[in-house]
Amino acid sequence: MKQLKYTSEQLRQQFEDYLENKAFEGFPEVLLQPTKHILQIKGKRIRPMLLLTACQAFGGDVQNAMGPAATVEVFHNFSLVHDDIIDEADIRRGQPTVHKVFGTYKAILAGDAMLIHTYNLLQKAPAEKLPELLPVYNKVAMQVIDGEQHDVDFEDLPEVTAEEYMKMIEYKTSVLLAASLHLGSIIGNSSREDQQLIYDFGLKLGLAFQIKDDYLDSFGDAATFGKRIGGDILMNKKTYLLVTALSIAGDKDRQAIFDLFEEKDEEKKIASMLALFEKLGVRQKTYARMEELYKEAMRSLNALSIVEIARQPLLDLANSIYHRSF
Amino acid sequence: MKQLKYTSEQLRQQFEDYLENKAFEGFPEVLLQPTKHILQIKGKRIRPMLLLTACQAFGGDVQNAMGPAATVEVFHNFSLVHDDIIDEADIRRGQPTVHKVFGTYKAILAGDAMLIHTYNLLQKAPAEKLPELLPVYNKVAMQVIDGEQHDVDFEDLPEVTAEEYMKMIEYKTSVLLAASLHLGSIIGNSSREDQQLIYDFGLKLGLAFQIKDDYLDSFGDAATFGKRIGGDILMNKKTYLLVTALSIAGDKDRQAIFDLFEEKDEEKKIASMLALFEKLGVRQKTYARMEELYKEAMRSLNALSIVEIARQPLLDLANSIYHRSF
Repeated sequence: MKQLKYTSEQLRQQFEDYLENKAFEGFPEVLLQPTKHILQIKGKRIRPMLLLTACQAFGGDVQNAMGPAATVEVFHNFSLVHDDIIDEADIRRGQPTVHKVFGTYKAILAGDAMLIHTYNLLQKAPAEKLPELLPVYNKVAMQVIDGEQHDVDFEDLPEVTAEEYMKMIEYKTSVLLAASLHLGSIIGNSSREDQQLIYDFGLKLGLAFQIKDDYLDSFGDAATFGKRIGGDILMNKKTYLLVTALSIAGDKDRQAIFDLFEEKDEEKKIASMLALFEKLGVRQKTYARMEELYKEAMRSLNALSIVEIARQPLLDLANSIYHRSF
Repeated sequence: MKQLKYTSEQLRQQFEDYLENKAFEGFPEVLLQPTKHILQIKGKRIRPMLLLTACQAFGGDVQNAMGPAATVEVFHNFSLVHDDIIDEADIRRGQPTVHKVFGTYKAILAGDAMLIHTYNLLQKAPAEKLPELLPVYNKVAMQVIDGEQHDVDFEDLPEVTAEEYMKMIEYKTSVLLAASLHLGSIIGNSSREDQQLIYDFGLKLGLAFQIKDDYLDSFGDAATFGKRIGGDILMNKKTYLLVTALSIAGDKDRQAIFDLFEEKDEEKKIASMLALFEKLGVRQKTYARMEELYKEAMRSLNALSIVEIARQPLLDLANSIYHRSF
């Protein structure tokens, strides 16, 4: 293979065309508007891009993968619609959320219709692949719901362990990235071993990304990060930093952390918590953990039995995720 | 075939055992309680019974159909969980609804998990049947959501046509009965022609049932019906009776109906509306329509290429549905 059939930009364009013109044939007319509303609040279509890129990396025909690529994108958007109801979020990427525009009841039903439709889209894959694709997809779909419920429950708990936290972010974010790659590799006729490796690549990448997200909220550069530094601290949010701090702090520092939860002076609250994180070595530990996870992801990527020219776009996607250039 | 392998009672018992002990393996622990809550508010498991009975009628192995039978039961219950949120219903069959007991957010996520799980259950069917089962199931699942959205929208409309009303009840109720039979017949290796006939049997049966439900609310015997007579009239509910009345009434009677919507005296409101229904011939028309639909259902049932001994339990189920002995 001298060069790949399609560049990443071409894949992205083809996917957008598919989503715009083909993906919603037969979708209920009355629920199309809320569905289109959430889908036009575009991210960079990370999950379908992972799926299509994985498919092509193994020499598969990406036209066979367009339906499943829409499956993971529509699933992701379904989960946003229901999550935004649950989190009472009014705004997503600067636009009003579905339940804000169309009401909660329509948002529930539109989400349900989107979820059902993901299975129609999955069925656009070659029929002989379906018995292999369906369990992989079902499993990840259930894990994401499970992760969301744990995330909701965590808010009411005084404390969660680092292990519980890792499980939650694994389910809520990482498994869908991993499964997108896995589904694409199945359609691309990869070996079982490569399927395992590419899943692991996505999983570690997702975990690294999620921990970095926590890290940047406390230690990022406000200009680059694009959000106020310390927002998580102000909300007493259970982040990798906080659960790590609580897991290594002695009684006195633990008490100091719990006292800070009640602190009303915002500047003081952020500064004091950051100082505690530094003192406990949480900053370094967190940085080391995310870098380690990213390296593990790279190790799995490099172990894939694919030509170098096919590895590059997967590496590019990994970098765009980890370095948040999207 | 001298006799069927299992009686209806045996099928029902086997299904209850399956649902209790096998159907929820691998289901998220955190969402199991709300799911078990709705499923223990048992009806008579009409949909799985239709599926298993159809499978056996064509000589299929019902053990291959237990998973799909749970699919239609869990789907039906998923739709109740989300519908009860949307309809703000606190009580179902005398028990508190899922969102009342566990909160709206958990009810949304439990419903989502149930919906995803229906696909795990469908996959318990023999693998070679999956490409045939999945589109049938996907289609009906989407129609039910579509029907629910139309039902919600209807409440805000001043008037709906008889045609729109029929479409709504078809989607909201009948198609799932029809599809349950269809799925069972596929697993039972029936011919395409029989699949069409058994679907039609279920569809007409469902429509007859739904119209009868409207009929009894206005013209039933309160003791047998188990609800207050005239409840639909008091709520200005769009029923087969009402849409029929509006479709045949002249200007004066139409105005009388709209005036009655505002009537505060409950006794007077019910009595006057019933008198209008009688005067317009709506009672007779409705009765004739439901009987005609039931006869059409019977015609399809009788046209099935199955032995008489296999037709009887399908007839029994039809009678138990139409005559509400459940």
